[in-house]
Amino acid sequence: MTKVAVFGAGSWGTAFSVVLADAGNDVTIWARREEVCDEINARRENAEYMPGVQLPAAVEATHDPEKAAAGADVVVLAVPSQRLRENLADWAGVLPPQAVLVSLMKGVERGSLLRMSEVLAELVGAGPERIAVVSGPNLARPIASREPAASVVACADEDVARRLQGIVHTRAFRPYTSTDVVGCEVGGAYKNVVALSVGMAVGLGFGDNTTASVITRGLAETARLAAALGASPMTLMGLAGLGDLVATCSSPLSRNRTFGERLGQGMSVEEIVASTRQVAEGAKSCTSLLALGRRHGIDAPIAEAVDAVLSADLTPSEMVNAFIARDTKAETD
Amino acid sequence: MTKVAVFGAGSWGTAFSVVLADAGNDVTIWARREEVCDEINARRENAEYMPGVQLPAAVEATHDPEKAAAGADVVVLAVPSQRLRENLADWAGVLPPQAVLVSLMKGVERGSLLRMSEVLAELVGAGPERIAVVSGPNLARPIASREPAASVVACADEDVARRLQGIVHTRAFRPYTSTDVVGCEVGGAYKNVVALSVGMAVGLGFGDNTTASVITRGLAETARLAAALGASPMTLMGLAGLGDLVATCSSPLSRNRTFGERLGQGMSVEEIVASTRQVAEGAKSCTSLLALGRRHGIDAPIAEAVDAVLSADLTPSEMVNAFIARDTKAETD
Repeated sequence: MTKVAVFGAGSWGTAFSVVLADAGNDVTIWARREEVCDEINARRENAEYMPGVQLPAAVEATHDPEKAAAGADVVVLAVPSQRLRENLADWAGVLPPQAVLVSLMKGVERGSLLRMSEVLAELVGAGPERIAVVSGPNLARPIASREPAASVVACADEDVARRLQGIVHTRAFRPYTSTDVVGCEVGGAYKNVVALSVGMAVGLGFGDNTTASVITRGLAETARLAAALGASPMTLMGLAGLGDLVATCSSPLSRNRTFGERLGQGMSVEEIVASTRQVAEGAKSCTSLLALGRRHGIDAPIAEAVDAVLSADLTPSEMVNAFIARDTKAETD
Repeated sequence: MTKVAVFGAGSWGTAFSVVLADAGNDVTIWARREEVCDEINARRENAEYMPGVQLPAAVEATHDPEKAAAGADVVVLAVPSQRLRENLADWAGVLPPQAVLVSLMKGVERGSLLRMSEVLAELVGAGPERIAVVSGPNLARPIASREPAASVVACADEDVARRLQGIVHTRAFRPYTSTDVVGCEVGGAYKNVVALSVGMAVGLGFGDNTTASVITRGLAETARLAAALGASPMTLMGLAGLGDLVATCSSPLSRNRTFGERLGQGMSVEEIVASTRQVAEGAKSCTSLLALGRRHGIDAPIAEAVDAVLSADLTPSEMVNAFIARDTKAETD
């Protein structure tokens, strides 16, 4: 039996623990707050992040990182992207030196512009054969409810990807392997930015033609940056690119789409944050992705527009109009 | 002023006439039934196919093909795919020999397995420089309501594509040029098949993760066939591939998605046809696309499953289960 530690008891970390337990692993989930651990251990529920879902008996919780990591063959990281560095500073000493590190995080670190796998490599000193990413059209709640979904397990070492595939395969969760860590990570981070812009269009009252156009141009923008960073365009056409983007942009469960929708309805960033007590991941990674794009000379009109709306330099309505009114040209220019 | 004849007064032909009139063209729409023409000319409405939309004054209707085509610089074809051949047999003699022929049709002819541009070439004897396709995320009703949308105008001759682009560009409708007629046509026909399968998943109660997975695998299947027929993969990642597919699969306005949804809810093909008096385009083209795939040795699990459900050899629930339960493998295998 494989022992898996999951660091982070947010909605995705919790849902992924259900997959891991269903696949027959022994799962220990680390939560920052002791009361969340107590609730999981005593009542088999994480009521704040996954209310109503009964966690399998194979999932145990602890807020002691050392206890969580002890003897783990696989360590899954599911903390907020912008907190990974400070968290790893606390944990680096306790992670088993042979454990494979699996990132569920979708973001780019502010300032350093590093992807999550790069932050892991830097702080843990792990080589590419020990760093993997799971990404796909995987809204957390339906995964926890065992609704069928496919996903991508990527690691530069194909054998490791295949081993992980076996560890996370259930009747409902269908993982495909890939060696394109970069493509999965760029797809995962960028889709939140595109979802913000799609949400704005929805909030302004536009329909499926407009949102499909924004999704299409958004994926092209994502693929341009991913290719510049060394990814394969096929990854972006796949589950961790297109699939994740479409699921996020279609779902009212998506925080990023909902955040954009409220912007489109005329709320300010401050008002949204005040009412929901959180900033959408895309709002945090947008500036970093834009900076990465500039560094590589990539045309990124959607990230630029979202960034300008978030800084209140542009209204959502100006954003959509600018997007439609651009000069006509060839599609692949 | 450009004179444009639009053959076909269904919902897309009617909506596209609005775009053409808004772009400053002189538009004559041909309708099979005289009463539709009378209504358009007298009341500026096509109540059966586009109720509530006031047609611009520049749109005139006639049921005389010769009158519709007289002096046209551009002839737009918007009849049901499986009727193009018989219609052209009536019209071929009246189409101006220099006019550019623009297909709005999304299907593959049964029996011959020809795409619409190929049927046009065969029956009219026009060269590739006279045959174009317009395709994209363009649900008809929002286009007629001037909701912003992007689209692709494809012609093997880039100059012709650019000329057409100028002719159909409005404040709301943003055309991009392409030379990939094959890619646009395969994308347009296949998306109806994928929309049927997505509709089935929705009808069975599955959510956004599942539908996003089906959309992603469906686009990969589309791209495989398109590439075998000589198209560029980039076209399928664009507005006429991904864009059209996402709009169709997201919209409750899509006939194909709705048809699939009813299948998923347990209705038979006969029951759906009896209640709606029409068969979805995807149901008509599925067998042809599958036969084209077999001819080129393309793996087409979605078209195969949809075909089997349409012939009542498989239930929608078996289709979704088969889709999820397939052996795990690498994503790009």
